[in-house]
Amino acid sequence: MSEQMNTQVKLVQRPVGEPAPDCFQVEQGPIPAPAEGEVLYKVLYISLDPAMRGWMNEGKSYIPPVGLGEVMRAGGVGRVIRSNHPDFGEGDYVSGYPGAQEYAVEKGSDLIPVDPQVAPLERYLGALGMTGMTAYFGLLDVGRPQAGETVLVSGAAGAVGSIVGQIAKLKGCRVVGIAGGREKCDFLRELGFDAVIDYKDENIFRALKQACPDGIDVFFDNVGGAALEAALARLRLGARVVLCGAISQYNTTERPTGPSNYMSLLVNRARMEGFVVFDYKERYAEAAAEMAQWIAQGRLQAREHVVEGLPAFHSHLMMLFRGENFGKLVLKVAED
Amino acid sequence: MSEQMNTQVKLVQRPVGEPAPDCFQVEQGPIPAPAEGEVLYKVLYISLDPAMRGWMNEGKSYIPPVGLGEVMRAGGVGRVIRSNHPDFGEGDYVSGYPGAQEYAVEKGSDLIPVDPQVAPLERYLGALGMTGMTAYFGLLDVGRPQAGETVLVSGAAGAVGSIVGQIAKLKGCRVVGIAGGREKCDFLRELGFDAVIDYKDENIFRALKQACPDGIDVFFDNVGGAALEAALARLRLGARVVLCGAISQYNTTERPTGPSNYMSLLVNRARMEGFVVFDYKERYAEAAAEMAQWIAQGRLQAREHVVEGLPAFHSHLMMLFRGENFGKLVLKVAED
Repeated sequence: MSEQMNTQVKLVQRPVGEPAPDCFQVEQGPIPAPAEGEVLYKVLYISLDPAMRGWMNEGKSYIPPVGLGEVMRAGGVGRVIRSNHPDFGEGDYVSGYPGAQEYAVEKGSDLIPVDPQVAPLERYLGALGMTGMTAYFGLLDVGRPQAGETVLVSGAAGAVGSIVGQIAKLKGCRVVGIAGGREKCDFLRELGFDAVIDYKDENIFRALKQACPDGIDVFFDNVGGAALEAALARLRLGARVVLCGAISQYNTTERPTGPSNYMSLLVNRARMEGFVVFDYKERYAEAAAEMAQWIAQGRLQAREHVVEGLPAFHSHLMMLFRGENFGKLVLKVAED
Repeated sequence: MSEQMNTQVKLVQRPVGEPAPDCFQVEQGPIPAPAEGEVLYKVLYISLDPAMRGWMNEGKSYIPPVGLGEVMRAGGVGRVIRSNHPDFGEGDYVSGYPGAQEYAVEKGSDLIPVDPQVAPLERYLGALGMTGMTAYFGLLDVGRPQAGETVLVSGAAGAVGSIVGQIAKLKGCRVVGIAGGREKCDFLRELGFDAVIDYKDENIFRALKQACPDGIDVFFDNVGGAALEAALARLRLGARVVLCGAISQYNTTERPTGPSNYMSLLVNRARMEGFVVFDYKERYAEAAAEMAQWIAQGRLQAREHVVEGLPAFHSHLMMLFRGENFGKLVLKVAED
């Protein structure tokens, strides 16, 4: 191990608009040694998330930005190599925030044990990880859908959206998804969505009028822009708009577009509310157990889109902004 | 009475942008006769409200638009002339929705008795009427301020805003108001506001940073536009944005401006929520009793801005959009 090096992807420039390849630099660093209470693990998969775009910006947000010259922040799963924490031993599998690198050290108290016998490791970054938690708490705690209500999801074929739609179906809602392209729309129909809008092929406003003739009770928004305006235009009384993301606006170099019809919230006595999944830490276990059960029962389909090669981090990340991923995008860093 | 006529202000054209004088027409109509269960009353004061601008637009909203050729909708108070309803007799004073005219007939069940011995009649259109109810329920039920929190109010010297700020003070909050012009700002300081921003004289973003160094817990918005964006930029975790109005946007002929930084709601786990005062009908009496008590105790100052002359309805109404009123704008229609 002493001869091995640690391939790392560092953030070296802050992007203006769409992240350029030279925002990142691939370097070889040493393999770090774990201090007391810490764990060294080999990173096997990392999660690629739209939220990464926000972490690259300077300034105040829900977590500090990634510093210039630092390893790019990323959630991931891996196998323990050396542990100075009583809860973990060599060979154990863990989930944490290793960053975009091959070897990572974290405090044992920040790691969650995962079990490749229960589910494939990449799923702990998807339905059984932050992605699933985001869908679960955002929909159920913030959106609070009731059986019989209409739930609309944007970015519906994405990692979070595809789970949100399925949970809403499990809760007895009528579910409508917005996605781009025929293949994604077909995928959503397979998942049981009641209606699907292809924003690349249809006028969202018109399509939404057809798909939601009685209006929308819950809108789970991953996209912002036109999808948000179209949804606001069709809210029902007492509707809830869950702000999870605004991927259509992340790379704009102009002012992002705010929803010009936000006063629909007044007319419809509706609310628009944001959330950050980290706030639900205490309840991750409860949610993961329920999600795992739904998956085991065949009632929830988890789909990962696995790409390979850490040095190509930038081009893999860009798939998210080009709408090229299908379900949860995961980067395989190494063979187990 | 049979020789008298009924001066009426009718909506005869829908405005594009700022309402032009010829949107209204002053006509003489007959004095209507009350049917079974109805009450005829002489209108003494009507309320002038920013919401009237919305009622003049075609299309779906929280109430139907005023029809072309119909008397302009307006809340008002008056004295009963003839009653076919057991709850009211000649000479009683009532509050209702008479419209912009001298004599009105309404169902007795839609009228609320008012007492000029308890408060001047115009106050039943202000602090003790819809205006006060809007401030009370919007702040307390939607905004839910806690003692020690910071409450920001836009349109703070207006009818609703000036009451919102005072109730927030009564609840132990630190209160900051945004208003236009030195005289209004002085008025807010007299009312006990802790800090005041003159948007005509200061950069709202910078001034807000100074006035709310620790951020905003509740923003009660009557104005929209720059005030909303500036407030969103300074939300605290868990903040509540109460959408009451957007007077800066009502007369625009372009698309209204949506808040480009609405994703601050996500970062700060905050919510933006609209409400319509009519939904609180069942609780008006409770709120009015508490407001009347605060006024009697000298803890809440109610201020009406009374103008006279029904035929000049249009120019009185425009005062609202030009920021010329100070407290609640009321049009005196007739001597008692």
